[in-house]
Amino acid sequence: MDKKLWGGRFTKEQDDRFWKFQCSIGYDKELALYDIQGSMAHVKMLSKCGIIPRDNARSILKGLKRIQAQAQSGVFSIDKGAEDIHSAVYIALKADIGPAADYMHTARSRNDQVCLDMRMYVKDKACLLIDLVKGLQLALALSAKKYQDIIMPGLTHTQHAMPVLLAHQLLAYVEMLQRDKARLEAVYAIADEMPLGSCAMAGTSFKIDRQYAARLLGFSRISHNSIDAVSDRDFILDMLYAIILLFMHISRFCEDMILLSTEEFGLLNMPEQYCTGSSIMPQKKNPDALELLRGSSAQAYANLHSVMVLMKGLPLSYNRDMQLDKEPLFGSVRQAEDALIIAAGVIKGIKPAKGHGLRQGFGGDDCLYALDMAEYLVKKGLAFKQAHDIIGRIVACCIDSGIKMSCLPMEKYRQMSDKFDKDIYKIFCLKRSVASKISAGGTSPELVRGQIGKWLKRLSNRRA
Amino acid sequence: MDKKLWGGRFTKEQDDRFWKFQCSIGYDKELALYDIQGSMAHVKMLSKCGIIPRDNARSILKGLKRIQAQAQSGVFSIDKGAEDIHSAVYIALKADIGPAADYMHTARSRNDQVCLDMRMYVKDKACLLIDLVKGLQLALALSAKKYQDIIMPGLTHTQHAMPVLLAHQLLAYVEMLQRDKARLEAVYAIADEMPLGSCAMAGTSFKIDRQYAARLLGFSRISHNSIDAVSDRDFILDMLYAIILLFMHISRFCEDMILLSTEEFGLLNMPEQYCTGSSIMPQKKNPDALELLRGSSAQAYANLHSVMVLMKGLPLSYNRDMQLDKEPLFGSVRQAEDALIIAAGVIKGIKPAKGHGLRQGFGGDDCLYALDMAEYLVKKGLAFKQAHDIIGRIVACCIDSGIKMSCLPMEKYRQMSDKFDKDIYKIFCLKRSVASKISAGGTSPELVRGQIGKWLKRLSNRRA
Amino acid sequence: MDKKLWGGRFTKEQDDRFWKFQCSIGYDKELALYDIQGSMAHVKMLSKCGIIPRDNARSILKGLKRIQAQAQSGVFSIDKGAEDIHSAVYIALKADIGPAADYMHTARSRNDQVCLDMRMYVKDKACLLIDLVKGLQLALALSAKKYQDIIMPGLTHTQHAMPVLLAHQLLAYVEMLQRDKARLEAVYAIADEMPLGSCAMAGTSFKIDRQYAARLLGFSRISHNSIDAVSDRDFILDMLYAIILLFMHISRFCEDMILLSTEEFGLLNMPEQYCTGSSIMPQKKNPDALELLRGSSAQAYANLHSVMVLMKGLPLSYNRDMQLDKEPLFGSVRQAEDALIIAAGVIKGIKPAKGHGLRQGFGGDDCLYALDMAEYLVKKGLAFKQAHDIIGRIVACCIDSGIKMSCLPMEKYRQMSDKFDKDIYKIFCLKRSVASKISAGGTSPELVRGQIGKWLKRLSNRRA
Amino acid sequence: MDKKLWGGRFTKEQDDRFWKFQCSIGYDKELALYDIQGSMAHVKMLSKCGIIPRDNARSILKGLKRIQAQAQSGVFSIDKGAEDIHSAVYIALKADIGPAADYMHTARSRNDQVCLDMRMYVKDKACLLIDLVKGLQLALALSAKKYQDIIMPGLTHTQHAMPVLLAHQLLAYVEMLQRDKARLEAVYAIADEMPLGSCAMAGTSFKIDRQYAARLLGFSRISHNSIDAVSDRDFILDMLYAIILLFMHISRFCEDMILLSTEEFGLLNMPEQYCTGSSIMPQKKNPDALELLRGSSAQAYANLHSVMVLMKGLPLSYNRDMQLDKEPLFGSVRQAEDALIIAAGVIKGIKPAKGHGLRQGFGGDDCLYALDMAEYLVKKGLAFKQAHDIIGRIVACCIDSGIKMSCLPMEKYRQMSDKFDKDIYKIFCLKRSVASKISAGGTSPELVRGQIGKWLKRLSNRRA
Repeated sequence: MDKKLWGGRFTKEQDDRFWKFQCSIGYDKELALYDIQGSMAHVKMLSKCGIIPRDNARSILKGLKRIQAQAQSGVFSIDKGAEDIHSAVYIALKADIGPAADYMHTARSRNDQVCLDMRMYVKDKACLLIDLVKGLQLALALSAKKYQDIIMPGLTHTQHAMPVLLAHQLLAYVEMLQRDKARLEAVYAIADEMPLGSCAMAGTSFKIDRQYAARLLGFSRISHNSIDAVSDRDFILDMLYAIILLFMHISRFCEDMILLSTEEFGLLNMPEQYCTGSSIMPQKKNPDALELLRGSSAQAYANLHSVMVLMKGLPLSYNRDMQLDKEPLFGSVRQAEDALIIAAGVIKGIKPAKGHGLRQGFGGDDCLYALDMAEYLVKKGLAFKQAHDIIGRIVACCIDSGIKMSCLPMEKYRQMSDKFDKDIYKIFCLKRSVASKISAGGTSPELVRGQIGKWLKRLSNRRA
Repeated sequence: MDKKLWGGRFTKEQDDRFWKFQCSIGYDKELALYDIQGSMAHVKMLSKCGIIPRDNARSILKGLKRIQAQAQSGVFSIDKGAEDIHSAVYIALKADIGPAADYMHTARSRNDQVCLDMRMYVKDKACLLIDLVKGLQLALALSAKKYQDIIMPGLTHTQHAMPVLLAHQLLAYVEMLQRDKARLEAVYAIADEMPLGSCAMAGTSFKIDRQYAARLLGFSRISHNSIDAVSDRDFILDMLYAIILLFMHISRFCEDMILLSTEEFGLLNMPEQYCTGSSIMPQKKNPDALELLRGSSAQAYANLHSVMVLMKGLPLSYNRDMQLDKEPLFGSVRQAEDALIIAAGVIKGIKPAKGHGLRQGFGGDDCLYALDMAEYLVKKGLAFKQAHDIIGRIVACCIDSGIKMSCLPMEKYRQMSDKFDKDIYKIFCLKRSVASKISAGGTSPELVRGQIGKWLKRLSNRRA
Repeated sequence: MDKKLWGGRFTKEQDDRFWKFQCSIGYDKELALYDIQGSMAHVKMLSKCGIIPRDNARSILKGLKRIQAQAQSGVFSIDKGAEDIHSAVYIALKADIGPAADYMHTARSRNDQVCLDMRMYVKDKACLLIDLVKGLQLALALSAKKYQDIIMPGLTHTQHAMPVLLAHQLLAYVEMLQRDKARLEAVYAIADEMPLGSCAMAGTSFKIDRQYAARLLGFSRISHNSIDAVSDRDFILDMLYAIILLFMHISRFCEDMILLSTEEFGLLNMPEQYCTGSSIMPQKKNPDALELLRGSSAQAYANLHSVMVLMKGLPLSYNRDMQLDKEPLFGSVRQAEDALIIAAGVIKGIKPAKGHGLRQGFGGDDCLYALDMAEYLVKKGLAFKQAHDIIGRIVACCIDSGIKMSCLPMEKYRQMSDKFDKDIYKIFCLKRSVASKISAGGTSPELVRGQIGKWLKRLSNRRA
Repeated sequence: MDKKLWGGRFTKEQDDRFWKFQCSIGYDKELALYDIQGSMAHVKMLSKCGIIPRDNARSILKGLKRIQAQAQSGVFSIDKGAEDIHSAVYIALKADIGPAADYMHTARSRNDQVCLDMRMYVKDKACLLIDLVKGLQLALALSAKKYQDIIMPGLTHTQHAMPVLLAHQLLAYVEMLQRDKARLEAVYAIADEMPLGSCAMAGTSFKIDRQYAARLLGFSRISHNSIDAVSDRDFILDMLYAIILLFMHISRFCEDMILLSTEEFGLLNMPEQYCTGSSIMPQKKNPDALELLRGSSAQAYANLHSVMVLMKGLPLSYNRDMQLDKEPLFGSVRQAEDALIIAAGVIKGIKPAKGHGLRQGFGGDDCLYALDMAEYLVKKGLAFKQAHDIIGRIVACCIDSGIKMSCLPMEKYRQMSDKFDKDIYKIFCLKRSVASKISAGGTSPELVRGQIGKWLKRLSNRRA
């Protein structure tokens, strides 16, 4: 039996090394179920349109159902001669039902078939990732609720800025992830276009019914230009892009968590279940999960990069280079699945470090209140720029003299501005500082509680 | 006068080389109008909320209007001491109205201010690019209409596949660009969130009205987490991504045009207005516009890459690294503007090459009809796989013997299959072949005309 | 038995999904032989220095030899509990020789051990790739010799420039590959530094003899800073970089071959052994090998990219992110091996297309001689710029009138310049044109023959 | 006067927008001096070989000298009609000396001319960067000497590993930079090949003396294949690559410095001259220089990326896309110059933070001594794996009970192993720990002093 779908005009066998190099079955077997389902719809359509005999169609469909069952239960055995998933299904079908199998590939090319498979894959995975993102958001929102009293030093430039609620920062990640979900939804929508029937690149002379096939496969529309349909990989790139932003967000989350769980920051404790040790230093409990997630962003970035480079300057329509879009896509999707599940696990396990309460004075860093002090002066009537300058000079003087701002005597304050009053000393309180940030989106406990409530409600809906 | 917005606590001057290195005014002056407009809304809001004195607000607004007028007419002169656009506007304002200027920066940080400016910029540019994409689509659709009779060899693997209409291929680019437009619309939507009032990262203790400022600036919503608001650069990345896909499409278009206008393909003639010559070879008329557009994709790719690398693993919230998001963004936007306008110019100027009609036999390559022949056999009752095999063997035999398929005697055909009849010789006709591709999205003139009509109608609407 | 090298302080098991995610054994088993060899040298050194008991050392070495033999014959069975290759070897050793195995990891961390393994791997593979590059160069030089009479249109801007020898272009690739070899040699040299003994990051209190271990392992020098030694991945990046340039060169070669073997260019015929067909178009013989090699450059680019992003901004010294350097490296190396072998196969199989001789007039494109004509005028005394202008105008006039330059009557030539004489008509000869390019490095057959000879001689030496 | 070098055959003017888009003069003016110098050598060679009249040559050389003097003093005024630096020089020359200028471009194309200019640029800049790297190394080595007593927590996984000398870590950067220098030297060597005389792509029929021109310009060799010579951009990519590794190293250095100068780590104080403040928070002194240098790595990465994408799959020989190699190259070089100078400035200004001495107990983290304790047990006869396990369990027990290891009573130690003796308590000493790491490359003060000495000596040589 000829196991190639295209052997007729060839008189020589392919070079061995080249043959192995060009086979995609090693990775496109991931598409098995989509390929089978696509073929079933195609054959139903061909039969309905009278393009292939009804009996043959029935026979093919029965065969495909058997192969589908095998694939679903993980026992579909791929023939060694199969170069790709399309050949693998055809070979299995032919072995099962004989010559009737030869009718299946009418009015179809692997060029449009693989686009169909990939679109089905992308749609499925977009839904899966949306659910997992939601799971991570929920873990974050629940942690925010659980630890809503914890104050941490808000950082800009990795330097102390002002006190914020840990919960406020956790919700910042939830916001990022919400945008990731929106991107994944857009990926679903762009992938939801049925290319089958574009054939090699120009369509076919058979009177096929593409809308019918689209309905059978749950697509909301069909493609309208056969050349574009087989040349287009935008939906793959969109998926890869959605994933790199997701990983960029995760990498920032990881960096923050690594920082906050250093011995020096001492704010958080990483769960042992997501750490490993050292083969030489017995004390070690390293935040490996966070490091590997952070590092995984590199591969995700590279995967988009790879397919972008692949597609650059490729003439229309299909070129074999495009086969190399699969490993990056499958790799990124798998990585994203892992990352989302593991990140949620980490978040669930993270705990405030022992003694973090003691540290809430953050080494008694009064500089955290500098903005509060400036706003104090503004409320007493100064222009902000003046207030900023005055506090700046107080900071410089305190650093120089080694005196804390909260210990600076009133006369010193008065030297700088007569707006200062005794109530300035009330400024030096973490709780008060946090509570004062009442502008919409600010870090005051009331606002943050409101946001937590909003998110928990939204995330408990089926479609968040 | 102190030209820095932050000098108070510093006792030493910045190192000269570092100072120049860190100044962003060289590029962020691009934001001048957005920055001024943003400040006007901010001051109106501060005044309305009673946070700054009404008189001062009026004075600031008058001053800003004068600066705005200067900036609009290109005569806004930036002070040498200004490190960024925010300082530049403040310095100019202070020089104009004096101490009242010091009230402007109340309840605001450059951290949220620059986010506002950038979001306004991105929204504006997304609209502009959408219009330009539409212009390119229109040029393509009109060319498709003008040259709707021209048949070209459809290519897969840069090898002859089957005859298609040139118009059909031109519409393939229109489809790609339609997706680009959708991406740009999504960019607009994601950028349409008002960050001002997030201040440094935690909000403020002033009772500001962020919704009011949003309304004044035409934003449809406000941000809900101050840490995320100043840390988020997703909307910039989304813009850069939309542009790299646009350039990827353009690079494929350019590659095709370069190929089709080689001496060998000889199908199209590039307009002189978009070519240049050689300093050594007098005959040269090189397709420089196409090459430079194709090459520009590289810089566009790199710009997304740059900002992705920039953001990887950055701790929340603002870090100075993020200043480096501007040049890549501005660069990509400018490049996209140029590319879209030039590509439309090229398309308008492209003409069929002299003698392309003679070439429409494409060297008499009968192999272009191989699929037509296989479908012929299928319609006579063969399974497609059998038909494919038979035609494959005929091709091999013709190549071997040097006889064209259209010249192969009937008895040879009959030896291969008794399904062949005299009507097989009608197959060898470019027009017939193209006309036969009647499946939805196919290349038949009727379908292509329909698509041209649809696009011309759609593109003539204000919002396509 | 405890299969972890670091379990002591942990009280909880790792999360399952995280455990699988963090295991590197799936890919770092590629390092098995290097890891074993490294351990053998390490143990010999420990024993020589009296750090571990001689008996134990002997016992370990015997065990390692058995494992080495298994690994060499492909039957080394990796324990399911092994997370990485280091644990795998330890577990196998312990199972074989018992408690003595526990002495092996003295004065060593996986941090320096993995650096050692990777350096040994890189050195080995650099040598292998150098040999394969040489093989490809030889295939090119031999083809250049075989087809040294074939003239092709030299292209700039993918447009006709002037006639050149196909052999001259083939030697251009040989030059590129020569630079690739130089880069691979530099990679070898940079990797040739022995890191073992740097331990976790600070060295050890044992009196080890690092030079001795280096000698045993064939390293020419040892590292001099323990922090740098475990943090450094430059040698991996250098390898990835050498490979991306190699692939960039290959991608250009492929593009050229694809172009020259189109139906339109019709210069070369691709060997069937490196082509495949279409599942729908029976005539198809697509240059898949060339397309896949061209496309593979994308993954190679991405692999460098990935490790660069990985390393960006990582604090010293070792971070777990760095584990993710392996898959990109191994992937690029494997791909380069395949690509070099397949490209050499393609080159050996490529043949001039039937009728290419007829085509050597290149559609009678006289414009190819425009530079020759300009140089003709210069030799008659004109300044080059004037000559260029005159020929330029002749070209324009010929295109306009549809007359070929070789058919333009003498009086027309005289109208343009009185320097023209009858000998101008001798210019229009491919052989003459090519033969005239006598400047060093030019395309004249004599020079090209000289280059072919030089390369064949050089490449037949063991070290080219 | 015709300002184009190629206008002869054109009958239409270029489109305005396209003309501006394609002009490179905006950036390639950076090449002015190289272009002039290259032309001088070219004309001398043409004259020596009798290809152009001696008088004309003399006249051209005089003119070029005048232009050179203008360019050197920054007053070379570029004509508005000049599209690139080659045209700019020609136009100025023609305006100065008249028709004789038209002889200059004999036996030369802009294709080989620009390669010459770029190679001269790269050679120059490689030398400059090598000097600057050396300067940064020197600053590091001097700081290492100055602060050689300071102990810091050595980190792996950003978690405490063991105590090391700050000087040891500073020397780690010196090692990285040494590899960067080696790469820059290799760049110089690869760029040192004279391409002029390759002309458009095939050489010329004039009897030119390329070796003579090479000698005049200080090149050590000439190119040997004219097609490769004008197609090759490897030397540019090598430069861009050398710079990305340099920036990767700098980004790690910056990350470390940012971390060590956080309020929490509190080890180092950033110099004010390399910091800026906040427009809203008066206390702020942000490490902007470090952040901008870290962030600059992104643009450097992108620049290599850009040119790699540019070159992918470009057919031989010259294509206009290749013009776009310049901005990335010039950008990366400028950035590297700035970065090296600024990083050296930062290093010179960094000081130990007040109170860092108090912190040298690092929060009394006894875990830093865990490896020392394990090695203690090994020296008493235990296998390392056993020792590791025992200490691991002690760590766990101490964390659980909240007792420090240095306070654990002897009987507890004895319960874990009878190898423990009273001398175990001597382990808990930072100085002792650091002093014990005596293996080559380790962190003991003696070894580190030796390394400092070696580097200071080496770096004081003219060629380090």
